[in-house]
Amino acid sequence: MEKTSLIGLDWGTSALRAYLFARDGRVIERARSDAGIQALRDAGFRAAFEAVCAPWLAARPDLPVIASGMIGSRQGWHEAPYVATPAGFAQLASGLLRIDRDAGRPFAIVPGVSTAPASGPADVMRGEETQVFGALSGDAASGRRRARVVLPGTHSKWVEVLDGQIVAFRTYLTGELYAVLSEHSIVGRLFPSRDDPAHGRWATHAFSQGLERASADPAGLASLLFSVRAEGLLGRYPADALPSYLSGLLIGAEIAHARSDPMHAGPTSAPLTIVAAPELAQRYAFAFRRLGVDAAPAGGEPAAAGLFAIATAAGLPLAAA
Amino acid sequence: MEKTSLIGLDWGTSALRAYLFARDGRVIERARSDAGIQALRDAGFRAAFEAVCAPWLAARPDLPVIASGMIGSRQGWHEAPYVATPAGFAQLASGLLRIDRDAGRPFAIVPGVSTAPASGPADVMRGEETQVFGALSGDAASGRRRARVVLPGTHSKWVEVLDGQIVAFRTYLTGELYAVLSEHSIVGRLFPSRDDPAHGRWATHAFSQGLERASADPAGLASLLFSVRAEGLLGRYPADALPSYLSGLLIGAEIAHARSDPMHAGPTSAPLTIVAAPELAQRYAFAFRRLGVDAAPAGGEPAAAGLFAIATAAGLPLAAA
Repeated sequence: MEKTSLIGLDWGTSALRAYLFARDGRVIERARSDAGIQALRDAGFRAAFEAVCAPWLAARPDLPVIASGMIGSRQGWHEAPYVATPAGFAQLASGLLRIDRDAGRPFAIVPGVSTAPASGPADVMRGEETQVFGALSGDAASGRRRARVVLPGTHSKWVEVLDGQIVAFRTYLTGELYAVLSEHSIVGRLFPSRDDPAHGRWATHAFSQGLERASADPAGLASLLFSVRAEGLLGRYPADALPSYLSGLLIGAEIAHARSDPMHAGPTSAPLTIVAAPELAQRYAFAFRRLGVDAAPAGGEPAAAGLFAIATAAGLPLAAA
Repeated sequence: MEKTSLIGLDWGTSALRAYLFARDGRVIERARSDAGIQALRDAGFRAAFEAVCAPWLAARPDLPVIASGMIGSRQGWHEAPYVATPAGFAQLASGLLRIDRDAGRPFAIVPGVSTAPASGPADVMRGEETQVFGALSGDAASGRRRARVVLPGTHSKWVEVLDGQIVAFRTYLTGELYAVLSEHSIVGRLFPSRDDPAHGRWATHAFSQGLERASADPAGLASLLFSVRAEGLLGRYPADALPSYLSGLLIGAEIAHARSDPMHAGPTSAPLTIVAAPELAQRYAFAFRRLGVDAAPAGGEPAAAGLFAIATAAGLPLAAA
């Protein structure tokens, strides 16, 4: 077996993704389990990690481990306090929480990043900081002074990086709004049910109309959301187009606001880097094209690349013999 | 007993409110039950109505009845099709749905009102049209050419009336967003639980800050919603202030958008009329003062006054002997 140096864990709410790194940072092997922190309690964390990495640890029991994501939250294994913006490799590396004793080996948790301006809303991230640095390492973006990364999802993040530091960011509740409105509100009452063949079908026209309406009037989002119900009641959209219309409204409002956010009004005209799983990245890429925003998906595996880079800044990986 | 002329029913999702009218339109008696349409199915509608009005019907079995609200929806007793804007007394009266046979007496259901502009979002109301005409009848507002009514609630409505007709309106999902985000999303995860003495406590400062942040940046609502979580995690607000902060954000975004809505950009500077139950009317009145908007609560009982006025336009009440 090739010489290994580090295990990286991208450990979120609903999944645990593990990477085995070679000494030069390449990913040699991958593993995944459903042991997100939601499914675990206290004693379960170590066992879950050892289970998913068992073959790697059997071969090399002293491999150090670095983990990022909700594993470092209050509901996770141990709470890793947030590091305030501006935050780069140095701040993240010195903010690493070591839990070697509980983990039975060198084990570091990457801190989250927070921002708390005196006169504006607070914000937090946990896990995305690692993906951001991973997305910017090793590709064309890394040479730029200023970069912007968008990480669509349950809690979409828009992140501004300047000279290798996260200087500002904004979270949008986009994905979670979609889920709770679909499942628990009148907005989703007309949607096809889970056992309907039309469930989950994609309606491009309705998605585009949602995008356009919300990006033309993002301040009216709370009213546009009700229009999902009204359009359905009046028969202007078939029921199976309503979920796409809702998705378009939420993504359209997010993009319109983020584009006009003073935080993104810097001197750059660099394209946005999109970090997301393929299906969601495609949906956002479609939205960006439709709204005339220059954006491109990140290459490689941002979480893995970020984990290795932060670990390296902290001197964690086993050195070449 | 004074001579009676009509029974009016304000029959919504969660409650049934009944009014017994004198021949001049005054309310002689009131009754209320929890038999909202949510709690009923088919055969239950007539029984629920007869139960709540039993003493009135015993004295005068031939009293005609008019009902407004969700009782006329697809989930209600019979669906009363929407009347399109512009809609005044004449349109509502001629759109009344008669269900005399099923009800065993003269029984009319007020239609809802819809708007479906070719290039904008659709909207619907059901029940509010009756309250709007009730609020504008009999008080100083009735003499004005143009009036605006706001009906805060689960689905807040902003209604523009011109020459006695509803010409435009907008629904905001404000109250429902508050409920689903509190109960089903990460936004409410830190809120005091129902059995906590701090549950439901009012935090004026947090409410005001929410109002101000959202009215300064209503297009950022989906991001401000996440700040409820972040402000709590970072300890900038105590947990028992977070619900008030969320309420302020939602109401602030609603008011800011509605004020700038072209639909409300007419030549009037007439004050807004607020139609809501006392606690909610007070909360909105506080918000309007804070944001410098001239608004005053409607007097009297808008639903009752509207029911009598629409019934009269249709010739429904028993005439004076």
